[in-house]
Amino acid sequence: MPPAPIVPVLDLTADSVAITRAICDIPSVSGDETLLADLVEQALAGASHLEVIRDGDTVVARTNLGRERRVVIAGHLDTVPINENLPTRFETVDGVEYLWGRGTVDMKAGVAVQLKLALELTDPVVDLTWMWYDNEEVAASLNGLGRLAGSRPDLFTGDFAILGEPSNGQVEGGCNGTLRAEVRATGLRAHSARSWVGENAIHKLAPALARLAEHEAETVEVDGLAYREGLNAVLVSGGIAANVIPDEAVLTVNYRFAPSRNVAEASEVVREFFDGFDVTVTDSAEGARPGLDAPLAQQFVRAVGAEARPKYGWTDVARFSALGIPAVNFGPGDPLKAHADDERVATSQIRHTEIALRDWLTGATA
Amino acid sequence: MPPAPIVPVLDLTADSVAITRAICDIPSVSGDETLLADLVEQALAGASHLEVIRDGDTVVARTNLGRERRVVIAGHLDTVPINENLPTRFETVDGVEYLWGRGTVDMKAGVAVQLKLALELTDPVVDLTWMWYDNEEVAASLNGLGRLAGSRPDLFTGDFAILGEPSNGQVEGGCNGTLRAEVRATGLRAHSARSWVGENAIHKLAPALARLAEHEAETVEVDGLAYREGLNAVLVSGGIAANVIPDEAVLTVNYRFAPSRNVAEASEVVREFFDGFDVTVTDSAEGARPGLDAPLAQQFVRAVGAEARPKYGWTDVARFSALGIPAVNFGPGDPLKAHADDERVATSQIRHTEIALRDWLTGATA
Repeated sequence: MPPAPIVPVLDLTADSVAITRAICDIPSVSGDETLLADLVEQALAGASHLEVIRDGDTVVARTNLGRERRVVIAGHLDTVPINENLPTRFETVDGVEYLWGRGTVDMKAGVAVQLKLALELTDPVVDLTWMWYDNEEVAASLNGLGRLAGSRPDLFTGDFAILGEPSNGQVEGGCNGTLRAEVRATGLRAHSARSWVGENAIHKLAPALARLAEHEAETVEVDGLAYREGLNAVLVSGGIAANVIPDEAVLTVNYRFAPSRNVAEASEVVREFFDGFDVTVTDSAEGARPGLDAPLAQQFVRAVGAEARPKYGWTDVARFSALGIPAVNFGPGDPLKAHADDERVATSQIRHTEIALRDWLTGATA
Repeated sequence: MPPAPIVPVLDLTADSVAITRAICDIPSVSGDETLLADLVEQALAGASHLEVIRDGDTVVARTNLGRERRVVIAGHLDTVPINENLPTRFETVDGVEYLWGRGTVDMKAGVAVQLKLALELTDPVVDLTWMWYDNEEVAASLNGLGRLAGSRPDLFTGDFAILGEPSNGQVEGGCNGTLRAEVRATGLRAHSARSWVGENAIHKLAPALARLAEHEAETVEVDGLAYREGLNAVLVSGGIAANVIPDEAVLTVNYRFAPSRNVAEASEVVREFFDGFDVTVTDSAEGARPGLDAPLAQQFVRAVGAEARPKYGWTDVARFSALGIPAVNFGPGDPLKAHADDERVATSQIRHTEIALRDWLTGATA
């Protein structure tokens, strides 16, 4: 008789730190989320208060209690590639206990809290739509939340959305937009032994780099939050051989812009900044206003006792924002540790997030 | 019976333009010179006034007439890659007849003149060492002349050397040296959404590019000839991803320096120019002083009725110069057409070079 295969089972009645550990130790690098999505689906399948919907490797679970308001709470299942940082382990630094390993911050601790509460909260004060999705860490075209918004727009109804992205247990509102552009200089090729016959395209990038080096990015206040922008060269390339005067040089810049501007306005900022150069916008994503003027958002911030801060990085809150649903990031973990090889989350932040979210959703802090 | 294979034979009693055409139509891109070297060796094998030596795809032929002085005359057999510019054809532009095609300028016209005279001149006024070598257009380590200088230094004796590189039928003396260096800026990696946490290495290249853009290269007089220098960026690279503040950016520069400086001095010029940057010299070749103060060189310039000019590009005359043999470039063809897709040589320049060289070597213009 063959040995019984080991079938992992996800126990969502466990402690949220234990759930975090369990789902981190099931690797789910983007594109490889099926096993974890299966376990999530199975763990919730028996809950009579939830309607469970599976779409690819995205799992949606929602209550249909006829509440006045509906809150969407979402998190992605995937992580960036593992770099010898799995399985997880506990470590204590300066008296603080951390769970160390890939995914602990971005964002399985947040997902663990959500999963635990999804099963536990049979009678929340608002109707809930939980979404756990695939492929957040890769090309936008693969994003599970984006796919679902296209195929099942009916699931995207709600008065408020919470994304569990790491925010140190604070509420981070909205997000900066992002735009990538190529700044191109052209010249005339020549043999480098007779450089005066040509025109050096790399040299022509000098004023573009000088402007960037001198530039001080703006900080823009939007709905009471200060969004710090950034305009940076991220790639540069030019030249075809070590004995040829280059006829083309390309600087790729990334503009992170406050959500008070849209992509068209941000593109104009970049074109003006690089006046005199050939500028091509190659990629962009709108930002999201913090949405903290929505009553439910204000009540949430008060209830979880958090300070509202701006989110600098682009996150999927922008998708909800685009659908007219005010959305914030609220999750355990320091965003600066996301994607880091020493990614680790303070276990106290996991517990804090769990308690704050439970209290709000059960009306204890309403 | 199988058909007889077509065996090309090189007839060196033909007109020098016809010989140019014949050897251009035998492709010999660097590394693929064997057939042409075989034909050259065979064409000279029967000449009783010549000792023929074969070394790889390099052929040497020399007279041993006991003359007081010996002149080395050399040319390379290889070309840069063909770009739909073979077989050759004649074309007339503004009343001037050209032979068009890969290798016509660099440098099979020069080789053709040499081959013709090597066979014809049984009684020259000086002893002659003819050298036709492989792999000039590729890495210096593959250069046939360099290989021969190492394996057969005895062949490199002489009072004067003439390299048949294209010089518009004029005498170009010496050559600039060349040096390649990497100019490196370093920073601190960060997510581009929080650029202020990092330090942008690409931005740090700004002053290096500004100095290059403003720089006016020197013109340095050496032995009566004016050598124009050049300091140029030839390659630039930096950045690892479109959402990461780059921690390294590298500018590759090429310094073409007058032969009054040696590599050590030229390296110092580059280091001072890029003061504040990490500079690594990655490749270099000494230049060659024009050598026009040598009596035989002066007599040669007078005899061929040419104007002495500086050679800007590095050529193998530097190898002879390093061995203490004054050396000049003298060949048909406009150097600006070397490597060009519309490479073409005025047939009158081929004939002019042939006549001038014959007259000098037979004492007609001594």
